[in-house]
Amino acid sequence: MNYISINEIKAWDRFYRANFVNCLSGFKPASLIGTINKEHKPNLAIFSNIIHLGAEPALIGFINRPLAASPHTIANIEATNQFTINHIHPSFVSKAHQTSAKYQAGISEFDETGLTAKYRENFSAPFVAESNIQLALELVEIISIKHNETFMVIGSLKDVYLDKELLLNDGFIDIQKSGSIVSLGIDAYYSCLPVERFEHAKINTEPAKKQIV
Amino acid sequence: MNYISINEIKAWDRFYRANFVNCLSGFKPASLIGTINKEHKPNLAIFSNIIHLGAEPALIGFINRPLAASPHTIANIEATNQFTINHIHPSFVSKAHQTSAKYQAGISEFDETGLTAKYRENFSAPFVAESNIQLALELVEIISIKHNETFMVIGSLKDVYLDKELLLNDGFIDIQKSGSIVSLGIDAYYSCLPVERFEHAKINTEPAKKQIV
Repeated sequence: MNYISINEIKAWDRFYRANFVNCLSGFKPASLIGTINKEHKPNLAIFSNIIHLGAEPALIGFINRPLAASPHTIANIEATNQFTINHIHPSFVSKAHQTSAKYQAGISEFDETGLTAKYRENFSAPFVAESNIQLALELVEIISIKHNETFMVIGSLKDVYLDKELLLNDGFIDIQKSGSIVSLGIDAYYSCLPVERFEHAKINTEPAKKQIV
Repeated sequence: MNYISINEIKAWDRFYRANFVNCLSGFKPASLIGTINKEHKPNLAIFSNIIHLGAEPALIGFINRPLAASPHTIANIEATNQFTINHIHPSFVSKAHQTSAKYQAGISEFDETGLTAKYRENFSAPFVAESNIQLALELVEIISIKHNETFMVIGSLKDVYLDKELLLNDGFIDIQKSGSIVSLGIDAYYSCLPVERFEHAKINTEPAKKQIV
């Protein structure tokens, strides 16, 4: 096992450092976030830090990079209070990655990548029709993280769209079956395979295994 | 595709809802966080919302549940300003899960699970010797999330321990080779397999593929 200090990391080339540090936190929950601006122009962008915040109330957050790097999604959410989260599958991972190109405001990444915007009644932000798990969220709060000018955007879950065949009888969702991917670093995508599922851990006993799917 | 409203979700049994909502945000970066209290008693706990916040400065965060549910890690970090993040591998995923049992303050989850506390010079918090990727972090800020009494704990990266053979020549870390797992819901663990790696996305071109490992 080798030791690498923060001073060594700071001295590295910027892109080498970005690849390295982005991998340290582990595989990341990547999804496509759909929004719309006040002129009804849709926006779609891949985000790789989707955060489960709690089940009751059902809150999901994500990290938005500094405004200079990633301005459109957060501006649209501030304008409309709405966004969608759409899981990504291997069949369109290339298109999902392409949404990270620096398109100008008002350009629809749906048009540019060929992904299909799906609109539903009572919600203005677009979903990704190709996605097997689609969520509608309403803005709760945007928290500024002063140390690097990023933001945590917190949404309240409103609607879920998925195939109920993915639901196990305890509420667990078999998102592996539906093909949800994870990301690693700034440009790599992975599928997941079951290792183990356990019963709730209790003091003085070994964790009992559960059937995973 | 089926539609599930938040009102339907709110009416569900608490454990069914917890399983369901915990799966919606996708596979999660789970790691073991090691801390120590002022009386030099170590603590180890699994956390499943590790967050990459930025590469320069290198900041990594995690979500801590409300104090009543998860008091020890955050108290130790407030007392010592230090914590470690240790990737989890299938060989000890059962022990990692077991750290989520409600042990009392001052009880060492290292002792209870059989995981090995590794201490290093100039850092008081313990690492997990079995882990292939071990990080030392210093506290930067604890942000209260008022909507559900959770916290985002932000740490500044200080030291990295890993096998340099995992490093590709662009700084990318092959954490799949070292076996890092992800979690899903509240009790399931998965391994990852490469799908694709891409060049930086540019306007008006398809994303070019990169060799992933």
